Amino acid sequence: MREKECIFCKIISGGISCHRVYEDDAVLAFLDIGPISIGHTLVVPKQHYEKLHNCPVEVFSAMSAATGKIAGVVAEAMQADGYNVLCNNGRSAGQLVDHVHFHVIPRKIDDGIFQRWPKFEYSSGQAEKIAARIREKL
Amino acid sequence: MREKECIFCKIISGGISCHRVYEDDAVLAFLDIGPISIGHTLVVPKQHYEKLHNCPVEVFSAMSAATGKIAGVVAEAMQADGYNVLCNNGRSAGQLVDHVHFHVIPRKIDDGIFQRWPKFEYSSGQAEKIAARIREKL
Repeated sequence: MREKECIFCKIISGGISCHRVYEDDAVLAFLDIGPISIGHTLVVPKQHYEKLHNCPVEVFSAMSAATGKIAGVVAEAMQADGYNVLCNNGRSAGQLVDHVHFHVIPRKIDDGIFQRWPKFEYSSGQAEKIAARIREKL
Repeated sequence: MREKECIFCKIISGGISCHRVYEDDAVLAFLDIGPISIGHTLVVPKQHYEKLHNCPVEVFSAMSAATGKIAGVVAEAMQADGYNVLCNNGRSAGQLVDHVHFHVIPRKIDDGIFQRWPKFEYSSGQAEKIAARIREKL
């Protein structure tokens, strides 16, 4: 299943070129054209799904297995100290292409990427209520 | 397999309490104690693996299945506009607990989290060389 106007579907079908790093039956991985670190790679299912929670389990599993393999190798090849795996879902979360994808972002100590981690504390009893609200929908 | 000093292994075995949102044979999900948005949830495999690339495929599959289910529900329950799924590997990438985990972070438009996305462009020929360096290790 491909979407006519989707840039990732066009890359998968070969209509737009990419710097491919990995491919199997279910997944294509290539360098992000606007990287935030050197070696920044995208892992994309060949079937078009918009968001992670739309993916059937087998697609998600194939993406995860490929991402696990790719992430360690990308980090090693880039002599990175670590890496982030990130999947943005929705514009508010930074998703720019509506075809689900994992970013694999090699990291070095003190590289300044994602420096901001604005954590806070729940007020008394708040976490209990929130957990209950999520549980009742699961 | 659990690690004696691992805080997530202690949560899994019940030695430390948590605000549980989901549990199955392979996975536990609970609210992050230092959330960056309301409903920020951690999805953790019950077996101890340090980083994503250390996980066997079946652990990936279990984490993926659970995360897919949880992410959509957390976003819905929090009336979020989107969500990030993030896995930090290594201190340089922001990993604070050495037991692999997915963050599910509900997002709202203009919430200011992860505002910084310091993208750049590769110089001529650079992407080709980097993709080749990764490919030869895969």
